[in-house]
Amino acid sequence: MIEGRNIESSVSLKYGQVGGGIGSFIGPVHRAALAMNGQADLVCGTFSSDVNRNIETGKMLGVSSDRIYANFEDMAKRESERKDPIDFVDIAVPNHLHFSVAKSFIEKGINVVCEKPLCLTEEETSELVKLVKINNVQFMVTYSYDGYPMVIEAKHLVSSGQIGDIRLVVAEYPQDWLTSLLELTGQKQAAWRTNPKYAGLGGSIGDIGSHIENVVHFISGLEIDQLLAKLEIFVEGRSLDDNAFVLLKYKNGASGNYWSSQIAVGHENGLKIRIFGTEGKIEWEQENPNYLKFQKINSPLEVFTRGSSYLSEDSKNYVRLPAGHPEGYFEAFANLYRNFCDTLIAKKNGRDLNQNDVFFPTVLDGARGVQFIHDCVRSSELGSKWVDGTFKIKEG
Amino acid sequence: MIEGRNIESSVSLKYGQVGGGIGSFIGPVHRAALAMNGQADLVCGTFSSDVNRNIETGKMLGVSSDRIYANFEDMAKRESERKDPIDFVDIAVPNHLHFSVAKSFIEKGINVVCEKPLCLTEEETSELVKLVKINNVQFMVTYSYDGYPMVIEAKHLVSSGQIGDIRLVVAEYPQDWLTSLLELTGQKQAAWRTNPKYAGLGGSIGDIGSHIENVVHFISGLEIDQLLAKLEIFVEGRSLDDNAFVLLKYKNGASGNYWSSQIAVGHENGLKIRIFGTEGKIEWEQENPNYLKFQKINSPLEVFTRGSSYLSEDSKNYVRLPAGHPEGYFEAFANLYRNFCDTLIAKKNGRDLNQNDVFFPTVLDGARGVQFIHDCVRSSELGSKWVDGTFKIKEG
Amino acid sequence: MIEGRNIESSVSLKYGQVGGGIGSFIGPVHRAALAMNGQADLVCGTFSSDVNRNIETGKMLGVSSDRIYANFEDMAKRESERKDPIDFVDIAVPNHLHFSVAKSFIEKGINVVCEKPLCLTEEETSELVKLVKINNVQFMVTYSYDGYPMVIEAKHLVSSGQIGDIRLVVAEYPQDWLTSLLELTGQKQAAWRTNPKYAGLGGSIGDIGSHIENVVHFISGLEIDQLLAKLEIFVEGRSLDDNAFVLLKYKNGASGNYWSSQIAVGHENGLKIRIFGTEGKIEWEQENPNYLKFQKINSPLEVFTRGSSYLSEDSKNYVRLPAGHPEGYFEAFANLYRNFCDTLIAKKNGRDLNQNDVFFPTVLDGARGVQFIHDCVRSSELGSKWVDGTFKIKEG
Amino acid sequence: MIEGRNIESSVSLKYGQVGGGIGSFIGPVHRAALAMNGQADLVCGTFSSDVNRNIETGKMLGVSSDRIYANFEDMAKRESERKDPIDFVDIAVPNHLHFSVAKSFIEKGINVVCEKPLCLTEEETSELVKLVKINNVQFMVTYSYDGYPMVIEAKHLVSSGQIGDIRLVVAEYPQDWLTSLLELTGQKQAAWRTNPKYAGLGGSIGDIGSHIENVVHFISGLEIDQLLAKLEIFVEGRSLDDNAFVLLKYKNGASGNYWSSQIAVGHENGLKIRIFGTEGKIEWEQENPNYLKFQKINSPLEVFTRGSSYLSEDSKNYVRLPAGHPEGYFEAFANLYRNFCDTLIAKKNGRDLNQNDVFFPTVLDGARGVQFIHDCVRSSELGSKWVDGTFKIKEG
Repeated sequence: MIEGRNIESSVSLKYGQVGGGIGSFIGPVHRAALAMNGQADLVCGTFSSDVNRNIETGKMLGVSSDRIYANFEDMAKRESERKDPIDFVDIAVPNHLHFSVAKSFIEKGINVVCEKPLCLTEEETSELVKLVKINNVQFMVTYSYDGYPMVIEAKHLVSSGQIGDIRLVVAEYPQDWLTSLLELTGQKQAAWRTNPKYAGLGGSIGDIGSHIENVVHFISGLEIDQLLAKLEIFVEGRSLDDNAFVLLKYKNGASGNYWSSQIAVGHENGLKIRIFGTEGKIEWEQENPNYLKFQKINSPLEVFTRGSSYLSEDSKNYVRLPAGHPEGYFEAFANLYRNFCDTLIAKKNGRDLNQNDVFFPTVLDGARGVQFIHDCVRSSELGSKWVDGTFKIKEG
Repeated sequence: MIEGRNIESSVSLKYGQVGGGIGSFIGPVHRAALAMNGQADLVCGTFSSDVNRNIETGKMLGVSSDRIYANFEDMAKRESERKDPIDFVDIAVPNHLHFSVAKSFIEKGINVVCEKPLCLTEEETSELVKLVKINNVQFMVTYSYDGYPMVIEAKHLVSSGQIGDIRLVVAEYPQDWLTSLLELTGQKQAAWRTNPKYAGLGGSIGDIGSHIENVVHFISGLEIDQLLAKLEIFVEGRSLDDNAFVLLKYKNGASGNYWSSQIAVGHENGLKIRIFGTEGKIEWEQENPNYLKFQKINSPLEVFTRGSSYLSEDSKNYVRLPAGHPEGYFEAFANLYRNFCDTLIAKKNGRDLNQNDVFFPTVLDGARGVQFIHDCVRSSELGSKWVDGTFKIKEG
Repeated sequence: MIEGRNIESSVSLKYGQVGGGIGSFIGPVHRAALAMNGQADLVCGTFSSDVNRNIETGKMLGVSSDRIYANFEDMAKRESERKDPIDFVDIAVPNHLHFSVAKSFIEKGINVVCEKPLCLTEEETSELVKLVKINNVQFMVTYSYDGYPMVIEAKHLVSSGQIGDIRLVVAEYPQDWLTSLLELTGQKQAAWRTNPKYAGLGGSIGDIGSHIENVVHFISGLEIDQLLAKLEIFVEGRSLDDNAFVLLKYKNGASGNYWSSQIAVGHENGLKIRIFGTEGKIEWEQENPNYLKFQKINSPLEVFTRGSSYLSEDSKNYVRLPAGHPEGYFEAFANLYRNFCDTLIAKKNGRDLNQNDVFFPTVLDGARGVQFIHDCVRSSELGSKWVDGTFKIKEG
Repeated sequence: MIEGRNIESSVSLKYGQVGGGIGSFIGPVHRAALAMNGQADLVCGTFSSDVNRNIETGKMLGVSSDRIYANFEDMAKRESERKDPIDFVDIAVPNHLHFSVAKSFIEKGINVVCEKPLCLTEEETSELVKLVKINNVQFMVTYSYDGYPMVIEAKHLVSSGQIGDIRLVVAEYPQDWLTSLLELTGQKQAAWRTNPKYAGLGGSIGDIGSHIENVVHFISGLEIDQLLAKLEIFVEGRSLDDNAFVLLKYKNGASGNYWSSQIAVGHENGLKIRIFGTEGKIEWEQENPNYLKFQKINSPLEVFTRGSSYLSEDSKNYVRLPAGHPEGYFEAFANLYRNFCDTLIAKKNGRDLNQNDVFFPTVLDGARGVQFIHDCVRSSELGSKWVDGTFKIKEG
């Protein structure tokens, strides 16, 4: 490794997982990311509502049978009663369960990592924000893309004034996996993500549009003032939007254009962010995450590569491999987990870390995302009218 | 040359130019494109309102002094009185003059090539459409990008059903040349293009947004039903929009998102068109015009290259060089001019050509563009409301 | 995860590491890759010749102090005497130690994973090949690039005849990290990799040229007949080649051109393989490993993406994330480790796995690489003459 | 147009063409390039050995029937006897005729433009060099790629020291059009280019390898000291090499690796040049000629685009269109023709232009190319031995 703080340390944390049974997508990603860091061991979980799958998954993962729980309430209760309870729970279940699972653990004083979107309603977000404050727990929402080193470099370029004052944000997140009615074929991911009961009000806007909102906010710090959305369902028989166009006005006077889609044939996971200022622009694409394009006005395009000597310490701090040795999606997650775990370890040792040094998306970021989804739905239902997009939830 | 009809023929047409004096951008492009084809000789013109520049340009171009005219009215009158008048006039002046120049020549029965946008008001477009019909002249609007072979191939793919039914159009035309107040530096292009007196109601939406409208319509055949626009001025002191976001509903139920900008740092002339259907997608970028990306659902991306054996006759017919030998902007213009000149030559020989074989953008395409600009302005002034975008002008 | 066998299983193997002390590059990569799979726990090691660093590393990694050994001989002896010895040793030390470390463990009947190049001389390779056979151990050489799913897909395309008979291989591995005398600045990697005492006879040809040889052989199955090399030292004061050009004749009549360089400014880790047959070509680049370019003659370029439905089971079997979620260097290592560990686990359970299903680069692949380096050096010393490149070491 | 000298001027030269009959590739390219500039009119020619095609081509091009000649000897004689003879002849015939046609016109004192390779033997090159000197004519060899603005910018970067001292040149020119025996299908281009009688000793090395030699020399100024070549015929039944690998030592100590191929499936016209120095590198690809990659050591890649403000005057002087409006192959030719015609016009007006300002490849560049081909053939026939590659022909 060329640069960066040491990424390994002896295991000192224990965690449990809710969800992530055999066959799920994101649960194993969380586990592998945690394993890369070597900071936390999986010791318990409730992996599936299917009894057999729950047990089978636990066994496969080496969890002792007395800590494979039948349900999350039981797990929260019994873990909190142990002398050696888990340090945090990792929530990797469909959206509709995020709230109740998170609540259960927070109320037991257990730190939480939760998938996005945070929950289904604005009432739930308010309550979670309050509960986190009251119970004084750490809460991370896995907006994973914030963990890519070149996203962190992009944030550095913006905050250090390299592109001047921001005027425009043009961002997109096209996919094509729901071009036809995949949800009727037995594909479980498709089934719950297109079902309002499990996914909430947002289809594409909830699943991936919320990632745009998060990454843009993370990089730019821009606050939304108003937004106007056109959510549509193109595949007959579907209940949630599979395409969304959103126009935005930010509080600083800048304008935005977000596009999320699940029917954009030929796009796999095409998150792309362009931010234009008075002096320069940045451009980043999730599918080629080791590169960041930067251009000053009247100058050549510059292509920054992860791990290079000319980058800022901000991003070098998150580099695991020398330039030219590609990192990917797992490492982005792992970087966020490292910060979260470092924070927990420091706390156990009686120290507080500077959140700038070990940032991670918090319950407030999660709340912002839920509001964004709801504002988009509201605008669209009004026939694409401008609606207030000011973030309304205040900490605690 | 591998394929395609012969691109050369003996010169048999004569033309004159209005505009295109030394220092202008598009006038020389028109002349070079015509020269590449070898079908028409420049024999007269009124190249500049500056007397000396007018004469100097005419001399440089080998125009005999008696056919260097003081103004376009004089030119239209005297050319039409000659025994050997020009076969067509080429209009390369700022937008505000298009109408009166075109009208003068049409009324004398002289065929016209005119830059876009066609004119400044919807009244002018109506009148031009009528005049063209009454006087039975050929009228081409130089929407140059329709002349790129890979745009023609894209049209073929759509019309032959390769991408299924169209659901989405996502198109952009970002530039950065007006990121600051270039118009105050003496740059003539910037001066007139940002001045409503010369450019009309549209800034970026008129100059380049209208190209998006045209190319999308050319490739897809989609008719706009409604549109919603947000036009903005980011550079203080400017009078016309330098950024525009437009959402669209087409009559077939598809949706669109157009973005034009003159302040998008790092983009030079970035017209990019993506069209997504139920079965596939196409993608084309003007800055790399020899490539066309095509993808069927659940299949690898395919990259088509201009001039390749596997392409349709539609595009092969416009290829001047073998695959791998790059063509560019001049050839796109030249392809349109070839079709226009072939049409005139055939007519002189008493034949009518099939417009499908020798298509070129006509006065109706010009009219559609003007209406698009005006609809966008109207929507934006209403605070980004949906407005009717149905094309209202009927032929004749 | 869309496709592929389950990548997780309960931990059932124990391993130790030789090398990989704090500050080393490849040792932590091996550990992280193993951690991602969750199949093997690190239980012992001798991490550094520096006593303090050895202990510090062991502690950081949670190794109990009685299994942090002073040296590899001690480790081999004492581990083999335990009731619960390690299942394999992972060797991540500079090249000159590979032979003696590997030998020590093989002779104790312990399976081995070893970095490349396998060892320094052809005599050593012969001996290791024999020892592996005699002691009936599993031996993996970490030619990591064979573990990329799209390299495996490339192998599938070749072996299934998709590109016809191979005519040409054009491959390169340019880097720029040794453009100046980095080895004099205290950079440890540079110091030992440019020192013949630690690195062996090859500079760029040993460190990265050997990767070209391996990946080309893995994908194509081509056997070298003759080769001609030009090894050069461009940076004054250096003892080993920092640039190598190699021409090759393969036994099937095909021709090759390999280029390795450590002074090619602007290239980070630019391994790129192109193989041309009578019917098609493939192209793969390590820095964008999730893509594979494939083209049939007279057809468009096709871009295959990792994890896509249209790929072969061969590569789908190695996919951890859905298409569009980038995998990288760690996963390539992890894939090889998974196959290696699966083989050991099966063996413990009394089964033999089909090497086609769970391939990994073996001691013979390591031997082929050493010979390649030596053949290149020999040819270059003869003034770039053709030399016999037939692989001479036979199994056992 | 943003920058650059005016590209138009009144026609003041007359030229004739030898070759370029209907159906030929390069003849029409020459004519279109000349037409773009508007400096020279075609007034005579002998376009084909086929009588009817000769006349038909002449008519199509508007050549008066008395100046459509039966053969080049006749044309040279009669044109030189006119009061208003042509200012130059343009030679666009197969290679074997270059020498005799050029000789005929030079001896009549007529300036010459000739396709490459200049001629078939080293004796012929010596004689042409002498004749040009004795008869004091201007002689341009159409090494067209030297006319691309970004190639000119590359030359500027090298000569102004931006990449330091050159260490490595890695250049390739792969094509795939001769992957099978196209020459037996009636394709005329393939037939003569693969026939030693018409093409000379070189197949791929003569047709395209010679372009590598020229562009590298043009950009870098490097002189070859020794070279080693492996020329091969992969398609059975063919008489000339369809693939060539060449290693080079330059007089300054740098090393080179050239690859030309006509059987590299998937490559159309893939000339690509990379030059690495002690301080930086440049990279240019003919198929995307408007871009130039430049990188300083330890700095981000910079992508220069044709026509941009930050470029040198050297390349701005050759820009016809603003950045982002793609130029291509025709313009590269046209740029060379402009310099050639400017030189002739200046001479007619009694002035000599600075060859640095209006460079074009001369008979000496042509001679260098012929020697390169012959040196490669010689080395290959010796079994890929190093041979002296010093350029031996001296001016006059």
